[in-house]
Amino acid sequence: MSSHPDRECPLDGDTRPQDMIPSKKSAVLVDGVVLNGPTTDVRAGEKFVEEACRLIMEEVVLKATDVSEKVCEWRPPEQLKQLLDLEVRDTGEPHHRLLELCQDVIRYSVKTNHPRFFNQLYAGLDYYSLVARFMTEALNPSVYTYEVSPVFLLVEEAVLKKMIEFIGWKEGDGIFNPGGSVSNMYAMNLARYKYCPEIKEKGLSGLPRLILFTSAECHYSMKKAASFLGIGTENVCFVETDGRGKMIPAELERQIWQASKEGAAPFLVCATSGTTVLGAFDPLDEIADICERHGLWLHVDASWGGSALMSRKYRKLLQGIHRADSVAWNPHKMLMAGIQCCALLVKDKSDLLKKCYSAKASYLFQQDKFYDISYDTGDKSIQCSRRPDAFKFWMTWKALGTLGLEERVNRALALSRYLVEEIKKREGFKLLLEPEYANICFWYIPPSLREMEEGPEFWEKLNLVAPAIKERMMKKGSLMLGYQPHRGKVNFFRQVVINPQVSREDMDFLLDEIDLLGRDM
Amino acid sequence: MSSHPDRECPLDGDTRPQDMIPSKKSAVLVDGVVLNGPTTDVRAGEKFVEEACRLIMEEVVLKATDVSEKVCEWRPPEQLKQLLDLEVRDTGEPHHRLLELCQDVIRYSVKTNHPRFFNQLYAGLDYYSLVARFMTEALNPSVYTYEVSPVFLLVEEAVLKKMIEFIGWKEGDGIFNPGGSVSNMYAMNLARYKYCPEIKEKGLSGLPRLILFTSAECHYSMKKAASFLGIGTENVCFVETDGRGKMIPAELERQIWQASKEGAAPFLVCATSGTTVLGAFDPLDEIADICERHGLWLHVDASWGGSALMSRKYRKLLQGIHRADSVAWNPHKMLMAGIQCCALLVKDKSDLLKKCYSAKASYLFQQDKFYDISYDTGDKSIQCSRRPDAFKFWMTWKALGTLGLEERVNRALALSRYLVEEIKKREGFKLLLEPEYANICFWYIPPSLREMEEGPEFWEKLNLVAPAIKERMMKKGSLMLGYQPHRGKVNFFRQVVINPQVSREDMDFLLDEIDLLGRDM
Repeated sequence: MSSHPDRECPLDGDTRPQDMIPSKKSAVLVDGVVLNGPTTDVRAGEKFVEEACRLIMEEVVLKATDVSEKVCEWRPPEQLKQLLDLEVRDTGEPHHRLLELCQDVIRYSVKTNHPRFFNQLYAGLDYYSLVARFMTEALNPSVYTYEVSPVFLLVEEAVLKKMIEFIGWKEGDGIFNPGGSVSNMYAMNLARYKYCPEIKEKGLSGLPRLILFTSAECHYSMKKAASFLGIGTENVCFVETDGRGKMIPAELERQIWQASKEGAAPFLVCATSGTTVLGAFDPLDEIADICERHGLWLHVDASWGGSALMSRKYRKLLQGIHRADSVAWNPHKMLMAGIQCCALLVKDKSDLLKKCYSAKASYLFQQDKFYDISYDTGDKSIQCSRRPDAFKFWMTWKALGTLGLEERVNRALALSRYLVEEIKKREGFKLLLEPEYANICFWYIPPSLREMEEGPEFWEKLNLVAPAIKERMMKKGSLMLGYQPHRGKVNFFRQVVINPQVSREDMDFLLDEIDLLGRDM
Repeated sequence: MSSHPDRECPLDGDTRPQDMIPSKKSAVLVDGVVLNGPTTDVRAGEKFVEEACRLIMEEVVLKATDVSEKVCEWRPPEQLKQLLDLEVRDTGEPHHRLLELCQDVIRYSVKTNHPRFFNQLYAGLDYYSLVARFMTEALNPSVYTYEVSPVFLLVEEAVLKKMIEFIGWKEGDGIFNPGGSVSNMYAMNLARYKYCPEIKEKGLSGLPRLILFTSAECHYSMKKAASFLGIGTENVCFVETDGRGKMIPAELERQIWQASKEGAAPFLVCATSGTTVLGAFDPLDEIADICERHGLWLHVDASWGGSALMSRKYRKLLQGIHRADSVAWNPHKMLMAGIQCCALLVKDKSDLLKKCYSAKASYLFQQDKFYDISYDTGDKSIQCSRRPDAFKFWMTWKALGTLGLEERVNRALALSRYLVEEIKKREGFKLLLEPEYANICFWYIPPSLREMEEGPEFWEKLNLVAPAIKERMMKKGSLMLGYQPHRGKVNFFRQVVINPQVSREDMDFLLDEIDLLGRDM
């Protein structure tokens, strides 16, 4: 371990946090430590917070919407390590130095709030959720018992209730989790518990092979979940999709028959509403029919697409979702609640979540409390300490109302339509498929390839284009969007519109800029 | 679902977020949506953030250290629901109303920063981690790939490296998780993967019964993990502890032999450094000897006790931790990094974490990126989006240095010693056991019971005292500390010292106040 030199700090005219011990006259000493009074120089600490807040306001919040700022200030890992003073040492740094460090962290961080950040399934700055997040950090709650987190537990209850309404259930239950991946795990475990409650105590050993079904376009967390839960990735059956990336129901039913014939035990179908790459929506009604016929739990991973439920125009994409047994829905994506804000919603109202997850810790969930302990919902979770993620979504919802959220969704999808039409019009751009949501997948075909026949050589060369353009755009810092190869298709761009700060002008810029960066290829 | 009335909002002279759409002359309309320019009134949003920050500063940060403030403003659930306007509606609320809501949220939230909040294993306000958390929320990163989170990935690497040093390993690997419970799950899954890598693909079905060993005093997350991972709670063997709550090594070995004889497959021993209730430290060296003899993975749940590693005086509590295969350690507890900051550290350097967890999503972890993709560490996680929790710990470590952190730990433990001695001196207070860490477990024996013989009636009556005093203290708002029954012991208080703002005076206050509240019992 690191050496601890003597605590002789050079004086440099600045306050060092560790120099803040007040000396008192009637000092009580225990084990050589002065125990009177607090140890922190509160005034200096508060001043530091105030100065840092000003920096955050100026350098992050006020610049968030400025398109003249760079999206990223790219440095390769080894160089960035040189630029940042990452090492922690025996002695602390003075406040002015810490503020410089903060400035560096901001400088070299990717500006996910920037109107031209399209790299992930989240983007932009929502002022209301940001305030909620600042509050959360200042209050530092942990959501397990009502006694320690009264407001945030009630807020979570209210938000879950409303989300359940939007799914179309009369009642239900739910919990906010650190990620849609975790929500999918919860659903898989719940379905397994419903299938055979004894697994909680006995485990899977000695049981028949449990098997689940999901689309070939599903999120990679399904595999992670099957592996983590001891089910095994080979027991995830990937059902073939149609040309638009939607699960083919007949194919699902065929595979269920097949698996049963082979002696496996089907227990779960996971449909996806809004796949990660193509933004496809599985046909929920037809899938629900099949689940009913076979007595299978239907989970809908609507982590990405769930936000369409807020729009009267687009909620039809999730037609049939009320027939699901569980739904994962991440308001941190299109509804901009901030990383992370992810709900798992469950139709069951027989306390299945609690039965499945509870471990009844007596130091936390005392049974002889003086208030209604049904509000101590922490035992529904795999976590012990848990963040109040519902709160940030609640604040935005309060601020914008359902109509404001609907408008955001409608606008994002209208902008997507606009971009699609522009791509169709422009030379050198080629849509992968007609999108139904906010994922616009397309190739940029540089001049040198435009006359070439679409044979193996063409695809091989095209495969190199998106990564090369991505490198150029990151080094320039002008915009960020993702690319990927996908199921036999060579590297293409995936553009996702979320941020309400984004306008038609940004869509035009995106295409112009890609063309500018790739024109010489 | 909720009705959407027409968007006719009454004008009230205040800005409503949904009224912020600018009308432009050359408007481009797609699907009835104007696509020119951004939709948010940026100026109004920024002003709202500024005003809210001022409120947070005044009402939370500046009051955090003021003992004349109440720790909590208790309201029972139904009453609090009436006081708070929890419902989200079709139309949004104006900014001044949102600020009132923020004020209410602060008012009725428990002040976990307060010097007299001793209710959990975390407490107090650290100005440095708070600034880091504000930055994180403003920058809104997600830590999976270097391209989108360059600074935070390097910070995580630096912090993990340093924590590994303090464990005493030459090298290692690790990841920050949303909670110590999740870290324990990771460790259990890693041990299982090491025991039989095929489980990742094949699952547990058809395998012999896997079995693990932990102390009877371990955290309840071990049961949650065994259930979630498909191992089953019955396959968690609880090893008996001695009078101080430490696992008895001979008992562990006996149970391993026993389980093997019964045909189960032992794969993991989980020792605890700092148990949740008693603060006990298992004898790691002796347990490591046993693990070596039987070829078992040794995981140490040092979520709570790991912070003692920062102190040259107290790190001996974890003597032998360098022999562990994995360690869970939560800097959000005694090192005050803010909920949540939890590392899982792994001794293996053969990329075991990645092998065990990876699902190789091609849309995120492209193999043809232009930079060194070994920095894209997201595939080591069960999560997809992930928060940069290492950053807040890094900021505090930078500010205080190792020496400053050491001093905090030493002070917390010296204050604990002081409290223990006071409890011994005072009439009506009775220690459960001599603590070795910051958990001071004690009964308050009210006057009416002081002369009674310690028989069944005494214990039955004493069992009612802590809950009754807890109710009174919460309704008064003067302090908060936890109580629980525990393994045959009736309800007792558990006092935990963490916050450096806490002084000898607060320890005296704690005992005086309990006596004041319980004197008539």
